[in-house]
Amino acid sequence: MELTTVKELFSDREKYLDKEVQVGGWIRSIRDSKAFGFIVLNDGTCFDTLQIVYHDTMENFAEVSKLNVGAAIIVKGTLVATPEAKQPFEIQADQVLVEGVSNADYPLQKKRHSFEYLRTISHLRPRTNTFQAVFRVRSLIAYAIHKYFQEQGFVYVHTPLITGSDCEGAGEMFQVTTMDLANVPKKDDGTVDFSQDFFGKPTNLTVSGQLNAETYAMAFRNVYTFGPTFRAENSNTTRHAAEFWMIEPEMAFADLNDNMAVAEGMLKYVIRYVLENAPAEMDFFNQFVDKGLLDRLNHVLNSEFGHVTYTEAIKLLEEHNDKFDYKVFWGCDLQTEHERYLTEEIFKKPVFVTDYPKEIKAFYMKLNEDGKTVAAMDCLVPGIGEIIGGSQREDSYDKLLGRMKELGLREEDYGFYLDLRKYGSVRHSGFGLGFERCVMYLTGMGNIRDVVPFPRTVNNCDL
Amino acid sequence: MELTTVKELFSDREKYLDKEVQVGGWIRSIRDSKAFGFIVLNDGTCFDTLQIVYHDTMENFAEVSKLNVGAAIIVKGTLVATPEAKQPFEIQADQVLVEGVSNADYPLQKKRHSFEYLRTISHLRPRTNTFQAVFRVRSLIAYAIHKYFQEQGFVYVHTPLITGSDCEGAGEMFQVTTMDLANVPKKDDGTVDFSQDFFGKPTNLTVSGQLNAETYAMAFRNVYTFGPTFRAENSNTTRHAAEFWMIEPEMAFADLNDNMAVAEGMLKYVIRYVLENAPAEMDFFNQFVDKGLLDRLNHVLNSEFGHVTYTEAIKLLEEHNDKFDYKVFWGCDLQTEHERYLTEEIFKKPVFVTDYPKEIKAFYMKLNEDGKTVAAMDCLVPGIGEIIGGSQREDSYDKLLGRMKELGLREEDYGFYLDLRKYGSVRHSGFGLGFERCVMYLTGMGNIRDVVPFPRTVNNCDL
Repeated sequence: MELTTVKELFSDREKYLDKEVQVGGWIRSIRDSKAFGFIVLNDGTCFDTLQIVYHDTMENFAEVSKLNVGAAIIVKGTLVATPEAKQPFEIQADQVLVEGVSNADYPLQKKRHSFEYLRTISHLRPRTNTFQAVFRVRSLIAYAIHKYFQEQGFVYVHTPLITGSDCEGAGEMFQVTTMDLANVPKKDDGTVDFSQDFFGKPTNLTVSGQLNAETYAMAFRNVYTFGPTFRAENSNTTRHAAEFWMIEPEMAFADLNDNMAVAEGMLKYVIRYVLENAPAEMDFFNQFVDKGLLDRLNHVLNSEFGHVTYTEAIKLLEEHNDKFDYKVFWGCDLQTEHERYLTEEIFKKPVFVTDYPKEIKAFYMKLNEDGKTVAAMDCLVPGIGEIIGGSQREDSYDKLLGRMKELGLREEDYGFYLDLRKYGSVRHSGFGLGFERCVMYLTGMGNIRDVVPFPRTVNNCDL
Repeated sequence: MELTTVKELFSDREKYLDKEVQVGGWIRSIRDSKAFGFIVLNDGTCFDTLQIVYHDTMENFAEVSKLNVGAAIIVKGTLVATPEAKQPFEIQADQVLVEGVSNADYPLQKKRHSFEYLRTISHLRPRTNTFQAVFRVRSLIAYAIHKYFQEQGFVYVHTPLITGSDCEGAGEMFQVTTMDLANVPKKDDGTVDFSQDFFGKPTNLTVSGQLNAETYAMAFRNVYTFGPTFRAENSNTTRHAAEFWMIEPEMAFADLNDNMAVAEGMLKYVIRYVLENAPAEMDFFNQFVDKGLLDRLNHVLNSEFGHVTYTEAIKLLEEHNDKFDYKVFWGCDLQTEHERYLTEEIFKKPVFVTDYPKEIKAFYMKLNEDGKTVAAMDCLVPGIGEIIGGSQREDSYDKLLGRMKELGLREEDYGFYLDLRKYGSVRHSGFGLGFERCVMYLTGMGNIRDVVPFPRTVNNCDL
């Protein structure tokens, strides 16, 4: 259908001024007096709305005047400049066709609704200002991530969702099955007979594509995954969802420094892309959602990220132990309060913390020469704490196997992973970026449920 | 790590000729005589390989000469032109550092392996020519799809994977649960007590994001999904996988013609992108996998797709019923043999078949004025048959509800979907493209197991 978009009107107004245009969209508000009326229209292509003026010279003036918020219309008219008004132009309508009415019980009336309430109508909330902004920016962030990696020659690998293994030996997982839950087949000894399941064995939803991605890095050098991951954690927080998306680049011939350079480059690229491509949305967030947002993001853009080892970081933090609920000591896991203090108060910019004690990190991380720490890195950013976690991977067959044995991992479950250290092993590194956390960071939204179109959390799987 | 990639050498050779460069990669083949040796190196950034010449002037000449296929090395040397040889240049090595040896039992020796065998080593097969080409092209296709939609202002929506509903009422689904399968909680009446499950109700893996995407099209006008979908079909064919990716655009203010225009534009865009960005890989497929591939794709690029109604198509096909295993008649579902005959023999180019009998299509498709057919479209392409299926959606509340009742769908399961027809309903359309089918089409690969990094099929969930 030949419609000019509101986005086109705003980005190329000279082309359309004083010309006849046809636009289609949904009514945000409508008011009429005797002889004419005003409609504020949003067509979904642009954060800005368009004012329509219509007159009683139109045959269906009465029909249009009775429309409710939410109704869909197609408007033919002339775009005229309105230098005196707050909007730059409006449409003087010759014709308003009603595409679809909106019932009077439309839940999104012209007033402010709480995020809590809007969560109960996840199919309608993208029609509000806030969620228009959130989900357009979410889309732009996703694209910027692809663009960043593709422009550098990274190969996008679709690692599997259904998996027979548990990447980090951690995290509660969702089981996937086609067996009749009312009547699960059992073996003689009473255990579940998984030979009768779809895959002939127990399967779960993945918690990370990293190990699979590593196999592709050993073929393509630089790869990344970008797909859904799952955690069946029974935790009801503003930062956890059962289903979320994750970006996991993996690079061969790359050590921890290369890894951090890519992470820093990616974050800056994404921030710049969003600031350039969604200025109206970002202004909105800065004004109505998170007042310091733009300053913070611009500061990140213009900072060289700091670097500090875990051991140094602990020393720095110990001087401020009186400020923390959890006191720090060498060997402890950093809490969000510590991470934020480091990045916000001590460094006043994003900072990479490196070389954590091996006990608090995953089995596949490369053991440093001190024998105590591993070549891990977490990227901490002001306002949020950890946003990226990564490491150089253990590339020595013997050391990796030793560590697996220490932790009680079964060698036969990781045959493919060990093979990578047997056939052309290469120093390599990678990291994980939780996509939703990144969206929260760039929008200032405080609850993960408000940056996922249809969030899945404990006892919540609507639509 | 500062390495020049083989891709850079091939794309900007003048810059590097007669200069010292450092490259890293894996040995594809190695042979030595007394005083010197040759290594063919692949670094994963480029389909082409690089020849390395090394000499016994190197301290570790003996060590290098003993390396096996698959070993990882870092080479420092001078890039020199080789106008007499089949490769354009080679590296005269000053230094060959062994990054990681390869055991003698490396499964990928320099010989042709069957695709069947390579499926058993899915973690190593991307190191072969064929799978280097397949998975680089897969990555490029994925990116081209994002690029196409983003450049046109479509919003990428991440529709949920875990779902409480079954989109089309069709397809066998995987169940998702955290309950103990050995001891599933039951209610007093013996049925499963889903209140004790993670989401408090039965949940499945999605078979389509369409219905969710429609809710976003009613807010953003043009949206698309691109994510994993699942079918628990017990079918062991070359075209079915239990886990696959799907692209589903959905457009408001768009009828069936708009829908077909977007589908045609997308396919051509993707083909053009891959031909431009992976010429070596596409030549390889054309030469070794599917001889007519490039002609076929170029023909698609240069054709205006045909259009024919189902009713006309049946008439055309009925004239050739002697050629078909399944005879066609009005009301029958088209089989692949019919689809291919239409596109290959009758139209000799891609063709959209439209307006199918409502009985063989989904409940949400818009009923045509004849009351018998729906505004559906399938896009058929030579060599494969159906590659895209879509429709204009029913936008009338009453007609949609009527159709749901005819088919026994429960109104309460589709409240959100009916809401879209109550609050500003808009004519809208969309389609689905099976990503793997698209990859097969563009590469000529004949088995879906060979275009998915880690395929999931009945009784197969390795790695």
